[in-house]
Amino acid sequence: MSTDQARSSSKTISTPFGSTDAERLVVAQSTELFSTSQPLILASGEKLGPIQVAYETYGTLSEEKDNAIFICHALTGDAHAAGKYSLEDSKAGWWDEFIGPGRGIDTDKYFVICANVLGGCTGTTGPTSISPQTGKRYGLEFPFITVEDMVRVHRALMANLGIETLAAVIGGSLGGMQVLEWVAQAPDNLQNAIVLASAAQLSAQGIAFNTVGRRAIYADPNFNDGEYHQNDEVPKYGLALARMIAHITYLSESSIEMKFGRKLQDESDEFAFELQQETEFQIESYLHYQGNRFVERFDANSYLYLTRAMDYFDLAARYDGLDAALKKTSARFLIASYTTDWLFASAQSRELVSTLISNDKHVSFCELESPFGHDAFLLEIDQLTQIVRAFLQAED
Amino acid sequence: MSTDQARSSSKTISTPFGSTDAERLVVAQSTELFSTSQPLILASGEKLGPIQVAYETYGTLSEEKDNAIFICHALTGDAHAAGKYSLEDSKAGWWDEFIGPGRGIDTDKYFVICANVLGGCTGTTGPTSISPQTGKRYGLEFPFITVEDMVRVHRALMANLGIETLAAVIGGSLGGMQVLEWVAQAPDNLQNAIVLASAAQLSAQGIAFNTVGRRAIYADPNFNDGEYHQNDEVPKYGLALARMIAHITYLSESSIEMKFGRKLQDESDEFAFELQQETEFQIESYLHYQGNRFVERFDANSYLYLTRAMDYFDLAARYDGLDAALKKTSARFLIASYTTDWLFASAQSRELVSTLISNDKHVSFCELESPFGHDAFLLEIDQLTQIVRAFLQAED
Repeated sequence: MSTDQARSSSKTISTPFGSTDAERLVVAQSTELFSTSQPLILASGEKLGPIQVAYETYGTLSEEKDNAIFICHALTGDAHAAGKYSLEDSKAGWWDEFIGPGRGIDTDKYFVICANVLGGCTGTTGPTSISPQTGKRYGLEFPFITVEDMVRVHRALMANLGIETLAAVIGGSLGGMQVLEWVAQAPDNLQNAIVLASAAQLSAQGIAFNTVGRRAIYADPNFNDGEYHQNDEVPKYGLALARMIAHITYLSESSIEMKFGRKLQDESDEFAFELQQETEFQIESYLHYQGNRFVERFDANSYLYLTRAMDYFDLAARYDGLDAALKKTSARFLIASYTTDWLFASAQSRELVSTLISNDKHVSFCELESPFGHDAFLLEIDQLTQIVRAFLQAED
Repeated sequence: MSTDQARSSSKTISTPFGSTDAERLVVAQSTELFSTSQPLILASGEKLGPIQVAYETYGTLSEEKDNAIFICHALTGDAHAAGKYSLEDSKAGWWDEFIGPGRGIDTDKYFVICANVLGGCTGTTGPTSISPQTGKRYGLEFPFITVEDMVRVHRALMANLGIETLAAVIGGSLGGMQVLEWVAQAPDNLQNAIVLASAAQLSAQGIAFNTVGRRAIYADPNFNDGEYHQNDEVPKYGLALARMIAHITYLSESSIEMKFGRKLQDESDEFAFELQQETEFQIESYLHYQGNRFVERFDANSYLYLTRAMDYFDLAARYDGLDAALKKTSARFLIASYTTDWLFASAQSRELVSTLISNDKHVSFCELESPFGHDAFLLEIDQLTQIVRAFLQAED
């Protein structure tokens, strides 16, 4: 579909979205952007095209096309932010409780879009995609990508839908980094920027944990330099391990203590030492479960590319200082951090807020009380609903 | 050597120890304790014997045998706490700066002993040892061991050296757990207990990190159910990965930021993406180096057994409450924690101190300022020297 075609049909873009399961059935959408002759020029200088983008929409785009909210997903998220594909689905989208009529992001008022990031593995072009040059999966031949590139692709999707200015861009963690990048890239094309549990750069400790996760993938004998799709097996042990490491950083010490403490799976079995199936402490069992489940839904190469993009994201370095990156926009900001988030500590949000204030920006900052650590932006929906609703309504 | 022989010769136990390299040459010692007919009964109920114990001594045991200080090493430590084996050695023992004439542990005054723990891989019986039953390495046939068992072996070593009462027992991290266990097991046989960066139990988050480290070892194809000594290769990727994960927990966010920040190894190479040798950020290079170096000196099975012992250590659970575990002793206590240690947070030390105070124990508590996280007890020697010297002298 060319951009012109999309524009001509965009007046009718509508995904009626309600409160009951039946009213919340959604369709996975996809569009092709860029091309071999008109590729995206990546931050690295390499060229990439065509690029397929998977997305979903909830609600109805106004005739003025001024009511769109773009949701940026986090590291292992996807375009399926809300609703179900069929009534039989056991699970709804990852931010389902937050999106709908009268919810934090009110679909009676806003037209909501969520798209899978460049480099992902759930519909948008990434290392699992077929390279038009070779006719084979990219694997590690996929170019190095950055948060800047992800946002360029999503901005192209907005142009394709005929949306020039967004009512808001919102995201947590890597999603929050995308929001900040969006502000820097297109300062006049968004009215509100909502950054949750995020920062203008990942901490060195965060890089360290990502490093170890990637190393776990490389060390898996099934990794085969990223060419594992030719194997019988994907590098499932390495990927599960990477997820387990990351998962610990998403939880707070207090949430682990509350949920699991030092409880054994089977109190009668005090001196069990089953090395291959080490599930004596409940936290162990939980991490193994999380690791194994992740392998079913995520691609190892994508994990490498996306964590690398997260490591390299550095808004200040890219735009010659944080001031320079943020000063041009007229967007209003809502920055929220969580008391027990140690991966993206409140101090990093405060730094961002200081810069915004010193540049005379309209900024609201909340340090939210939660025991759930970094994951709180995905779990504490009532709290998030209150602050996001208040922030967006205050504009009216 | 039987216990009687050791006792008859123990009057002369002396390892003259000075300040110059030549005066600090030490000899690795070893003795066999327990036997097939008189085994150690482990906490699990299993029997183990004979048990070889590797140890070192520094200084001279008084005729009254009342000046001995026992050093409990941490997870991956060994008996080589101070001095060098030869003048050509590039490195001295792991607490070298802390032990010697006029140092924190003054060898002009004290006779200092450090021994490798049960389950270790540097001289004391562990999974790499040959089982007398099978004539082969124990591997995963080695029995499940606990901190309680480690201390029983070291107490047997003291008996073997004819030492009934210790002037002090000191240790950090897993070493501090051993000190607490020593107090509980032999409340009348030590005068001073010095517990650094430790706790009466590992946090659930600590268990989580250990779990992931062990999983990395199991997932290494060279692990071969612990029978890797028959292979050409040990599970080096898994063990290195386990060390990298653990190493992050030993550092503080601030120490990583100070030392590495987000600095690239080669600033000119902004978009490098060498997956197999991922050393773009300096913290990555450092962790890879630490992981690879660790593999040269440590055994994977030992790592499994010792981390498991650390996970299971729970003084209160074992002795029917923390009060019961600590109330019988007349020892004086020095408890020290570090401001940036998040693996063994100060709150855990404070809990211990509260229990000691409510049981009318003599206790000194210091929360020491350091940017170095959990590793501070190995790095901040001047600070440690001051508090330990003051604590031991106050007794005189």
